[in-house]
Amino acid sequence: MIKEAIYHKPINQYLYNYDNETVHILLQAKADDLKSVSLVHGDPYDFTGKDWNYQLKPMQKSGSTDMLDYWKVEIKPEHRRLRYAFRCESINGEVSYFTERGHYDEPPKLIGYYFCLPYLHAVDTFDAPEWVKDTVWYQIFPERFANGDPSLNPEGTLAWGKHEPTPTNYFGGDFQGIIDHLDYLVDLGINGIYFTPIFTAGSNHKYDTIDYFEIDPQFGDKDKLKELVAACHERGIRVMLDAVFNHSGFYFEPFQDVLANGEKSKYKDWFHIHDFPVKPGERPNYDAFGFVANMPKLNTAHPEVKDYLLKVARYWVEEFDIDGWRLDVANEVDHAFWRAFREEVRKIKPDVYILGEIWHDSMRWLQGDQFDAVMNYPFTDSVIDYLGNQKINVKEFKNRLTEILHMYPENVQMYLFNLLDSHDTARILTLANQSKDRVRLMYLFLLTFIGSPCIYYGDEIGMDGGEDPGCRACMEWDQAKQDLELHQFVQNLIQLRKDVPAFGGNGRFQILHADEKSNGFVYRKQHLDKELIFVINNNETEQIISVPELANVQVKQLFADQSTALNEQGQVTLSRYGFQCFQII
Amino acid sequence: MIKEAIYHKPINQYLYNYDNETVHILLQAKADDLKSVSLVHGDPYDFTGKDWNYQLKPMQKSGSTDMLDYWKVEIKPEHRRLRYAFRCESINGEVSYFTERGHYDEPPKLIGYYFCLPYLHAVDTFDAPEWVKDTVWYQIFPERFANGDPSLNPEGTLAWGKHEPTPTNYFGGDFQGIIDHLDYLVDLGINGIYFTPIFTAGSNHKYDTIDYFEIDPQFGDKDKLKELVAACHERGIRVMLDAVFNHSGFYFEPFQDVLANGEKSKYKDWFHIHDFPVKPGERPNYDAFGFVANMPKLNTAHPEVKDYLLKVARYWVEEFDIDGWRLDVANEVDHAFWRAFREEVRKIKPDVYILGEIWHDSMRWLQGDQFDAVMNYPFTDSVIDYLGNQKINVKEFKNRLTEILHMYPENVQMYLFNLLDSHDTARILTLANQSKDRVRLMYLFLLTFIGSPCIYYGDEIGMDGGEDPGCRACMEWDQAKQDLELHQFVQNLIQLRKDVPAFGGNGRFQILHADEKSNGFVYRKQHLDKELIFVINNNETEQIISVPELANVQVKQLFADQSTALNEQGQVTLSRYGFQCFQII
Repeated sequence: MIKEAIYHKPINQYLYNYDNETVHILLQAKADDLKSVSLVHGDPYDFTGKDWNYQLKPMQKSGSTDMLDYWKVEIKPEHRRLRYAFRCESINGEVSYFTERGHYDEPPKLIGYYFCLPYLHAVDTFDAPEWVKDTVWYQIFPERFANGDPSLNPEGTLAWGKHEPTPTNYFGGDFQGIIDHLDYLVDLGINGIYFTPIFTAGSNHKYDTIDYFEIDPQFGDKDKLKELVAACHERGIRVMLDAVFNHSGFYFEPFQDVLANGEKSKYKDWFHIHDFPVKPGERPNYDAFGFVANMPKLNTAHPEVKDYLLKVARYWVEEFDIDGWRLDVANEVDHAFWRAFREEVRKIKPDVYILGEIWHDSMRWLQGDQFDAVMNYPFTDSVIDYLGNQKINVKEFKNRLTEILHMYPENVQMYLFNLLDSHDTARILTLANQSKDRVRLMYLFLLTFIGSPCIYYGDEIGMDGGEDPGCRACMEWDQAKQDLELHQFVQNLIQLRKDVPAFGGNGRFQILHADEKSNGFVYRKQHLDKELIFVINNNETEQIISVPELANVQVKQLFADQSTALNEQGQVTLSRYGFQCFQII
Repeated sequence: MIKEAIYHKPINQYLYNYDNETVHILLQAKADDLKSVSLVHGDPYDFTGKDWNYQLKPMQKSGSTDMLDYWKVEIKPEHRRLRYAFRCESINGEVSYFTERGHYDEPPKLIGYYFCLPYLHAVDTFDAPEWVKDTVWYQIFPERFANGDPSLNPEGTLAWGKHEPTPTNYFGGDFQGIIDHLDYLVDLGINGIYFTPIFTAGSNHKYDTIDYFEIDPQFGDKDKLKELVAACHERGIRVMLDAVFNHSGFYFEPFQDVLANGEKSKYKDWFHIHDFPVKPGERPNYDAFGFVANMPKLNTAHPEVKDYLLKVARYWVEEFDIDGWRLDVANEVDHAFWRAFREEVRKIKPDVYILGEIWHDSMRWLQGDQFDAVMNYPFTDSVIDYLGNQKINVKEFKNRLTEILHMYPENVQMYLFNLLDSHDTARILTLANQSKDRVRLMYLFLLTFIGSPCIYYGDEIGMDGGEDPGCRACMEWDQAKQDLELHQFVQNLIQLRKDVPAFGGNGRFQILHADEKSNGFVYRKQHLDKELIFVINNNETEQIISVPELANVQVKQLFADQSTALNEQGQVTLSRYGFQCFQII
């Protein structure tokens, strides 16, 4: 037994409230090192004489990589409390009890040696808004979605779609344009829109805020925003805005005041100025987003800044009834700020979705006191690398997906914001080297995975584009130039997500097979007694993939247009880049 | 290389702000598996063209057990940000780069693969009150310290010290008694008192609160408490009270109301009642502390209860100027409550010490948003087991102490409440089988360790006693029955803690040797350029212990009364249960 690789701490993804009466406990160990693991558990106060009354409950593997096995158990403690340890049995029969104080040959007598769940408090259970699980998002970059009111066009606005996007050009996208196309989005089936920033700013992307309380005039005014939000809500579409609180724009008044008045400015502590006079430049003498001088970092720990930004956060929820805040560069803002943010915003609207832009391990922000979710870029990367550009094979995909699924508690995973691309990456069609087949597989996976999926505007009709600015082209509204087949495919997936609970955010996800021969992937989604099995052929030739779970069962194929054969042994024949979803009857 | 045993996450004890410009990063690995580890690190935004600019910094072993090595590095990132990975080289020369996305043979090109410290925010640095590091606590169980005002004696009060303590008898200890003996405490040298509960309650221990806003009449009144606090403060002694917020007493008015009015009581949701009518008994039909019917668990998530208890928390700080709250059964109260508690109490007095009673891994409560410290019982157990009753040898002690030192960030360790015993355990003299020699060694270790040490009343004059109620005997005030030598020994240690910065809470602690032959233990304390080396002979015969660090150096022996020999090779000869502290000159 490689005891050194056995890991558990009574915190975060290893011990958490799954719901208000259930806890999940996880143990990690070297792959294939343990034959079985059981949870030794009991109530901390339940003794017969001096003997603690404990029971054993077998744990299951919730996932495996080439390196590690994850063992998991779900338990509803009668009195909401637990002391516990792990009975580990190695493949050659060695037994060790892993406790908070290390390994023992026998279960320790002293209760103090055991791990502890002191009391399961509902108030401490991670509680993201329920509606998020049933939401399919659509990301809109307002400058480039639709120009509905040419009277608002900024100076030098170019003809819609007639030019390549650059970091500085304008096409005049606005709120009216979005309102005009809401029915297109309803038809697609999405029910949430994530808007990149809309407040007065100095660029086409608006991530350099000038005024946090005003709408950028190129988009419209506050009445128009109210009209837009109301129009969305009428159609059952939630609205999420983008808050850039890590840094302001260069022309944010307080920063201009510091530039003008230096040390005498009453705003001098609103930023992180190293010394005076303030010198913008390649390496500014103040903290910035990266080293970008025109995005000075805000001092969010300063009481006035904190008050100001929290007022912003409340204002747009209170006055405009928005449903979510996407928080730009959220990882670089302090945790104390985000705790206050959550409290303030939820006081006004308890089911606001709080989504942080964090690209790396975000456990620190997902303990229930800060964010409901982060943008799940590790998921993005893995899907792109396997299905998009085929940089990794199915085995590596399984390894990476397994790690992702064990980064956070299961009930956090259910609210993660999953995306294939965004305004910060190349578009999927470009990443997939123009393979529409592989774009379809990516959409299939995104829209059958747990969490809250997001479609980047225009991807669904086959737009391509490289990294910024390439990915920010004008939405193609000419149906002749839209890939209507792809559009219909996405529409169909979204519809299935709504119609079949196991298909969408309420289904529990499980990896079944990474078929190295075919480079195919097989997974299960379950909801109550309903079970779906998905089979993907990520290969440019027809493949036969063995799925023992499908042997001798009655199934319904959810994708009738796919030419799939299934025999009694559970062998599934799929055409090149083919796929199928089998609903067990 | 046993890659499966290599562990790091960018959170908690593995990545933390040590101070407002320094971060600590730790990696754990199988013991003796890695020859060297270096931190690959750079600013997340510092690129030359497409190449990320990174550097390497060697990591050091901060501790080792039989099973694991802990590798640590301290770093001050120029721009307060870091991306990082670990270059691991195994004993046989294999090299692997351990990143957030697993192991690679070469450092990955993509910055997204690296672990991330997004930005070091001072406001997120763990910030317990500085004074705690320089405090030596004295725990008083008020009923049993001194009876200074017989007029307050409860009915049936027994003659002081003439009877064995029982769970139900009374000896009339009170505030006046404490005031009368403050000079004894000043003389001992302590500068903090932790009082077990003093509010109106139904028992001699007062952990069953009846009225959170009143002093138990047996101790005195509010004026007397003010006098006591003032008298302590005049003498430079801080005052910590005990808050029992997990449960109330049976006779707490709201609970009585629920008993009387059942479902109609306006307090019915103040507790966790399973069904009505309420049935106290061996297994009450409501949640309690353990299964103890007369300690009904409070529903701290209920807004009224939360408000009420937070009012209590503020009241005694605001009106009585207390310096700390020790929180009983703190682990069983919800985290949301403790976050609010910290905010409220620190608004009134920013340097209040918030100490939770938690006996197990407390990382969840020590992330900066809840407690400043917990009662460090894992430390207690290890010291008792090695020095007290010699259940474990020095090697096992080293293993356990190393684990304890790596349970929490180093700057959390510096504020932990370290104790050898309390009203909840047997006394140390009893645990040491009446060996005063070993009690001395325990005091030596407690008072030279980092953290905030606490002496349980009477231990310092040689009182013994088994578990509750044995450990709660009346303080012995008859000098003829006091062990004055032990008292002087403790006094001397406290004085050294004050006089020699490296000796006390400001010294950094390092294990040097666990000498299996002699069962002796050698450790270092350092403060700035001052260095102390402690050598302990935990053996009933004279021993020679090799301390290479003492070879050919000039030293001063801080314990002049100990017969210690040191030769040029660094061999230290110590008498049975002898010890020495060598100050390097």
